Amino acid sequence: MIEIIVLGSGNVATHLFKAFSAAEGVNVKQVYNHAEASLDFFKGETKTTSKISELAEADIFLLALKDDVIPQIAEKLSQKNGLIVHTSGSVPLDALSTCTRRGVFYPLQTFSKEKTVDYSQIPFCLETNRVEDLQLLKDLAGKISGKAYEISSQQRKQIHLSAVFVCNFVNHLYAVGEQLCQKGEIPFEILKPLISETAKKIEQASPAAVQTGPAMRNDVSTINTHLELLGSSENRKIYELLTSAIQSFHGKKL
Amino acid sequence: MIEIIVLGSGNVATHLFKAFSAAEGVNVKQVYNHAEASLDFFKGETKTTSKISELAEADIFLLALKDDVIPQIAEKLSQKNGLIVHTSGSVPLDALSTCTRRGVFYPLQTFSKEKTVDYSQIPFCLETNRVEDLQLLKDLAGKISGKAYEISSQQRKQIHLSAVFVCNFVNHLYAVGEQLCQKGEIPFEILKPLISETAKKIEQASPAAVQTGPAMRNDVSTINTHLELLGSSENRKIYELLTSAIQSFHGKKL
Repeated sequence: MIEIIVLGSGNVATHLFKAFSAAEGVNVKQVYNHAEASLDFFKGETKTTSKISELAEADIFLLALKDDVIPQIAEKLSQKNGLIVHTSGSVPLDALSTCTRRGVFYPLQTFSKEKTVDYSQIPFCLETNRVEDLQLLKDLAGKISGKAYEISSQQRKQIHLSAVFVCNFVNHLYAVGEQLCQKGEIPFEILKPLISETAKKIEQASPAAVQTGPAMRNDVSTINTHLELLGSSENRKIYELLTSAIQSFHGKKL
Repeated sequence: MIEIIVLGSGNVATHLFKAFSAAEGVNVKQVYNHAEASLDFFKGETKTTSKISELAEADIFLLALKDDVIPQIAEKLSQKNGLIVHTSGSVPLDALSTCTRRGVFYPLQTFSKEKTVDYSQIPFCLETNRVEDLQLLKDLAGKISGKAYEISSQQRKQIHLSAVFVCNFVNHLYAVGEQLCQKGEIPFEILKPLISETAKKIEQASPAAVQTGPAMRNDVSTINTHLELLGSSENRKIYELLTSAIQSFHGKKL
């Protein structure tokens, strides 16, 4: 049985808490948050506290907290015997340097409060300062997911950066698509099968190998029609830059 | 029974041919392409020809051709009694003005030669000059798909533009993600669950409502770390522009 104390009450804390609670061989002993009111969801499920001084001992202390408070909370846990881990994509392992046993347990996924998540599909990026603790984190990931990767702090930074492109920036392009549909009084529904297929396509193929569209075809007439439609909007800048980026990536020239 | 002659032998022609062949109540009488060699796939399945003069009569002539040859091929069909339709997202209905009965049958999807397509998930954008012909195209779409939309040429232009954002540009961001992974010696596999979830998320919610990430949180420290990692690459320009676009879309300021 792996005993855990979760610190935090946001999306990541809530989703991981649910996953651990449903899993065999994991026990969430306690949930901490500095604001008592945020603990309502966890009350009745396990013990809760808003005081660091009231924290029990555990195998793992999971800091699912905002990036900038991780070092100061970790410092307060420096006397604990358990493994202190954070769940952030962009915070280095060294941010926990006040703790003897430290690690990272970063789930590479986008969490929404309402939407349930299939943990068997989530890659966990793991890192520890002690070799023997890596196995503990692998065991923990194994309880809720099939996929664990050993990833250094530097690699994790690079993964987090990549995630901004394929998740946050992609989502903004979806938002632009919705905005353009609204402008043309077209239901956004009509684009959803295309969005879904575009994501599915790269499960089997390299995205570079399946690039299509006017930029790739060097279809100047369509590109000009589109620029005209976009007028002088912010979206025009995106169209121009991504068209030229696709062409330079694939060695084409307008 | 709707009788069709398909003109063209590219991705769209091939996929539609397969879908019509598998459907009840549709008969592809003939496939035309100017290059005899491109007809190999269709031989044995139906009649083929590389000569316009050898085309039979049919209910519908489906021009799944490159945008710029559509008007000249349509002109050669002006004596036919059937409905002349093209399958392009960006060519207006008027490009077929030499034909008495004209229409558009635009499947809004990204087609790859190798990958099979679930037609029940593809929206067809339909347009005709005669009201009575619209029903014929609805019937045809109904044979292979549940989704048909009546869309004007102007709206179709706008949809095609939106599709460039949510499909072609999104795919390029996937390619950038893969490139960044390669640079960090990280398997691109690790990003795929995130890509899939990002696309699934907007099936239920408006993309604008589920925007996340450093730009949205105005997380200057993470943004600066990312810009540093990107150096002076083309990808840095994309990062800067999309970060500022997200902030101006959502009324935030750095």
